[in-house]
Amino acid sequence: MELAVRFIVADWGTTRFRAYLLEDETVLDMVASDEGVSHLRPGQHREVFFRHCGQWLQAEPEAPVLLVGMVGSREGWVEAPYAHCPAGPEEIAKALVAVDLGGNRRGHIVPGLFCEPAPGAADVMRGEETLALGSGVADGIVCAAGTHPKWIVMREGRIERFATSMTGEMYALLREHSMIGRPATEPEDPRGFDLGLDAAERNNPDKGRPMGLLHLLFEARAAVVSGRMGTDFLGPYLSGLLTGDEINGALASHPGLEEVTVLADSHRAELYARALARHGVAVVTKPPRDALIAGLGRIVRHVPPQ
Amino acid sequence: MELAVRFIVADWGTTRFRAYLLEDETVLDMVASDEGVSHLRPGQHREVFFRHCGQWLQAEPEAPVLLVGMVGSREGWVEAPYAHCPAGPEEIAKALVAVDLGGNRRGHIVPGLFCEPAPGAADVMRGEETLALGSGVADGIVCAAGTHPKWIVMREGRIERFATSMTGEMYALLREHSMIGRPATEPEDPRGFDLGLDAAERNNPDKGRPMGLLHLLFEARAAVVSGRMGTDFLGPYLSGLLTGDEINGALASHPGLEEVTVLADSHRAELYARALARHGVAVVTKPPRDALIAGLGRIVRHVPPQ
Repeated sequence: MELAVRFIVADWGTTRFRAYLLEDETVLDMVASDEGVSHLRPGQHREVFFRHCGQWLQAEPEAPVLLVGMVGSREGWVEAPYAHCPAGPEEIAKALVAVDLGGNRRGHIVPGLFCEPAPGAADVMRGEETLALGSGVADGIVCAAGTHPKWIVMREGRIERFATSMTGEMYALLREHSMIGRPATEPEDPRGFDLGLDAAERNNPDKGRPMGLLHLLFEARAAVVSGRMGTDFLGPYLSGLLTGDEINGALASHPGLEEVTVLADSHRAELYARALARHGVAVVTKPPRDALIAGLGRIVRHVPPQ
Repeated sequence: MELAVRFIVADWGTTRFRAYLLEDETVLDMVASDEGVSHLRPGQHREVFFRHCGQWLQAEPEAPVLLVGMVGSREGWVEAPYAHCPAGPEEIAKALVAVDLGGNRRGHIVPGLFCEPAPGAADVMRGEETLALGSGVADGIVCAAGTHPKWIVMREGRIERFATSMTGEMYALLREHSMIGRPATEPEDPRGFDLGLDAAERNNPDKGRPMGLLHLLFEARAAVVSGRMGTDFLGPYLSGLLTGDEINGALASHPGLEEVTVLADSHRAELYARALARHGVAVVTKPPRDALIAGLGRIVRHVPPQ
């Protein structure tokens, strides 16, 4: 049995700062604020970190410190260059980038991952690599839901490759800025989601000649302006169409898939489960925070001592 | 030989008003302003029309008057309900909606068209039906380029069916509002367009397992943040990817296509020609204004007398 490890982590994204004092996967203490990296200027990060976590640093002078998420992007504290797939905890720990926390203490920024989905093509993640390592999946497919969902291939406990879909950002673009999505009204009729999944099947190459997402999106507008669909269906319809088309692409890459582990809150995970059930794919759900903490626990064992 | 017809038309869109005094396809006089329907309140349309065209109405007391475009939408002068496909000049003329121009004179709003691309699905056009009728294509495929390009099937001089793609609107959304497109810089490197077409081939079901447009769009961001693609390539790349994926969908609906008539300005038509050449499809180009005038000339022969 491995010895328990006590460590400090910050999950530092674009809009939120969350920090934990952990013993393995047990949360001993936590703190959160809205000081995401997009709200900070260069030089402010150390002060923010120290204000929230200084007490833990003093109480646990030996505890390793990990920072994960957009804190390692160009807009973050220090840019941590992408490590390359395939990568497990050991490869990721080798690519950690140190930051000076003051008082002779160092933090380690977890690098994002780069992969080449096709020769010359590129995909990247920053944060989801840690979720995937903590997903509990050693061999199989993990979907890290979010604004840019990642479909991740795990092999022998390492991240083999992955593909990102801009589903969530596209939904927001369509709802907030497009002629297609602007007529949407609330309260929404959730049956629209299943109608959107129906439409996505018309872009599934296994079910005939795919019509193209750009056409199916326009059909949503045509259905509204011709009076065939109520505006209360439109939001969920677009969500279903985009989710369904993300899944069309994922299943094309993973033919014969039987199960996927979805890292998402319960509402989003339920939508994935509904969409994937149509393809005979079972869904296992894990909360993203649990996966993050477990993934950090795997990485921290390879961190050099303070 | 048919007698020459002298008539007055307004091509009245969302942002522009253009009017012509025509004799068959010959422009005798014209006027244009930025008084598109989106700039007008209910009740203003007659005054705008009369101010620009009143002189022609007096000079040509027998001339039929046609109005085409978004002037017939819910946001226009009077809503002209969609006619249903298949439709030729006769069916469209039967569905004209009269508006009172004052002085005992009537104008006729050309209705848009509705079609059902799949059972229960919907597509609509408003204005492009007139372009298609004036395309010179009796049997074949016409692409009316624009913010929402329409791929139109002509049979025996009538519009059989069509499919719309939100390509142009999507490009604008991505460039102006998305994380994907915002890093784009100018001057642009036009080679990006061909790289975007390359990427679109990875969503062509005839060339392997399609990755999905939502993934390929994210790859553009990944290529930029990982330093694999310069930001001057990004705009043309997105244009090429979207155009290429529009064409993937169109060719899935029209397998074996050898020629398409593209109604577009010469720059846009050249981009379509480059994209379609990869699929062995030849492009014939016709300026949209010529097609519009020719299409109105076909419809006006079925208009009831003043």
